[in-house]
Amino acid sequence: MGSYQNGVVGGDRNASSVDKGVDFANYFCTYAFLYHQKEMLSDRVRMDAYFNSIFQNKHHFQGKTVLDVGTGSGILAIWSAQAGARKVYAVEATKMSEHASALVKANNLEDVVEVIEGSMEDITLPEKVDVIISEWMGYFLLRESMFDSVICARDRWLKPTGVMYPSHARMWVAPIRSGLTDQKLNDYEETMDDWYNFMNDTKTNYGVDMSVLTKPFSEEQKKYYLQTSLWSNLHPHQVIGTAAVVKEINCLTATVNEILEVKSSFSSSITLENTRLSGFGGWFDVHFRGRREDPAQQEIELTTAPRPDNGTHWGQQVFLLHPPIRVSVGDGLNVSFLMKRSKENHRLMEVDLSCEIKEYSGKLLPAFNKKFYIE
Amino acid sequence: MGSYQNGVVGGDRNASSVDKGVDFANYFCTYAFLYHQKEMLSDRVRMDAYFNSIFQNKHHFQGKTVLDVGTGSGILAIWSAQAGARKVYAVEATKMSEHASALVKANNLEDVVEVIEGSMEDITLPEKVDVIISEWMGYFLLRESMFDSVICARDRWLKPTGVMYPSHARMWVAPIRSGLTDQKLNDYEETMDDWYNFMNDTKTNYGVDMSVLTKPFSEEQKKYYLQTSLWSNLHPHQVIGTAAVVKEINCLTATVNEILEVKSSFSSSITLENTRLSGFGGWFDVHFRGRREDPAQQEIELTTAPRPDNGTHWGQQVFLLHPPIRVSVGDGLNVSFLMKRSKENHRLMEVDLSCEIKEYSGKLLPAFNKKFYIE
Repeated sequence: MGSYQNGVVGGDRNASSVDKGVDFANYFCTYAFLYHQKEMLSDRVRMDAYFNSIFQNKHHFQGKTVLDVGTGSGILAIWSAQAGARKVYAVEATKMSEHASALVKANNLEDVVEVIEGSMEDITLPEKVDVIISEWMGYFLLRESMFDSVICARDRWLKPTGVMYPSHARMWVAPIRSGLTDQKLNDYEETMDDWYNFMNDTKTNYGVDMSVLTKPFSEEQKKYYLQTSLWSNLHPHQVIGTAAVVKEINCLTATVNEILEVKSSFSSSITLENTRLSGFGGWFDVHFRGRREDPAQQEIELTTAPRPDNGTHWGQQVFLLHPPIRVSVGDGLNVSFLMKRSKENHRLMEVDLSCEIKEYSGKLLPAFNKKFYIE
Repeated sequence: MGSYQNGVVGGDRNASSVDKGVDFANYFCTYAFLYHQKEMLSDRVRMDAYFNSIFQNKHHFQGKTVLDVGTGSGILAIWSAQAGARKVYAVEATKMSEHASALVKANNLEDVVEVIEGSMEDITLPEKVDVIISEWMGYFLLRESMFDSVICARDRWLKPTGVMYPSHARMWVAPIRSGLTDQKLNDYEETMDDWYNFMNDTKTNYGVDMSVLTKPFSEEQKKYYLQTSLWSNLHPHQVIGTAAVVKEINCLTATVNEILEVKSSFSSSITLENTRLSGFGGWFDVHFRGRREDPAQQEIELTTAPRPDNGTHWGQQVFLLHPPIRVSVGDGLNVSFLMKRSKENHRLMEVDLSCEIKEYSGKLLPAFNKKFYIE
């Protein structure tokens, strides 16, 4: 045989019937590596936003109890303590908890920060908390479905007067242009050419006709090369039309049911002269505003939108069209966007996107529907 | 967060307490992809060996019942039927079984080949079989621990007079030279330089002292860059000394207990003038000899040893020494080799290797012990 390392994930049918062992093998294990923690801790946009949200809003932390959901290396718990928290509970599902404990101790905060190894759904705290802080955002916000655990933590452990860090989140979609379209189409065509050679060789050398597998193989490869969204750090110049919010989340009130699906119809107008629509880019932002009765003194935003300088480790998710479509300034897009969790793995996503384009002249281009996978 | 795709595997403590869901997520899922099947089906050395072993030994198949353990795309089952088998049971744990069924039908063998989706340990057959054929070999033979399932199949379903395809297997180790040593050492040093910069930045910008994590980070990176064996297609010129057999398996009689550990002490003499010992290469071969009372008419060998032309998809596993050691023709190595299954995942392996070098002059170099991981 000779099995290759890969990141393919299988497992449960839906969030409510998760096999914890499978989920750990598929998901949590990633976060047990310091290398991966370092990647996140080196993301200046991410770090600055959380750092500022805490230290420019000390009134939310001084003398308060804090819960950090998925503390990882413990950085948010440590900052909360440094900002004056009375007690911080830092919950981590992986063995990374041991490194978090060491880091807490090395920074002389073991009297304030208590690291608890376990899953948020299983553990219990000795008291309710004033603040829940968590960096739960996955690619395009909801990949990983980690916000489920934050909601669970909030409903079980946040005081009625408590605040959420972050307090709000939004998902954005915008039309883009990208050279990746041609590249991926070439990759797909090469893999198919290769398949036809393989098929002939197998027939000639080994007397077996493989042609019946051509369709499933091409579907497998289409999914991989053409329908799987790509991580990309887009330059603002690649955004060729107005961006639209497809989801708004109030972290204080959101329910799991509200985030199982993201359904939105939106319009976008092309803002660039004579260009091509290569597909759509998806990103998110979160805000730290406290709560209405107890607002932030300094509102902080963390955005993963395209930027000219080096972006975030989240980048943007790119959904490509094959082939791209010629568009120009003033053309209007009407888009229906539906994102659901994958049946095979509740931490991955599937996207149905349909779009009609009305040219500035008034001419209507044929509408199209596309299916994408966020893996 | 922003989780990266990766092949990290977690899970059960040992083979006897395997969580099937976890095992499937970690292991079997790889084989559900036609792309991966195609990689194996394109391995000419692999294909030729099995093809010849069947069609040059038709007497083992004509009018006989055959069991193919882990049939994948179904190729071995189809060949067995084409060679004249009366009935072939093709067992496959993944959804690949559906493609195997289609392939069987498309090649007009559905009356002979019965594809059964399920794990070998769970399914039952209506009769015992004359032949068990399987391509169960992982990197360095035993990675994946798939031979366990073949043993299970043999003990439950092979007639007392039955034959195993392949019938024998051997593991080889030899001293090698390789440029990978310097490369991996550089990679490791770069990642550590990067860590020290990261540590300073985190202290300066965010007031957190990360130094307590330097040791665990360097251990994690050492394991990744310096202690994890590498897939490589070695050229015979890179083998600088005599190769030794560290394990011989008789597929007709081997027990799981016999393959849980591979323990061997062997000697090797350097055959190259003034070179460097960069580490050791590990590979395997299997033979198709039938059984003593019912031998093959034509013995076939499948070897994954280093070869000048393009090798197999298994390549060789390379265990690197840092730094390499200067050796020359006539120097003698005494090596103790111990390979065990990983406690975290019974399909991965850990290797303890100790070596003393006696120069041709008689001078004894300091002995060394190394720990390696086959991931």
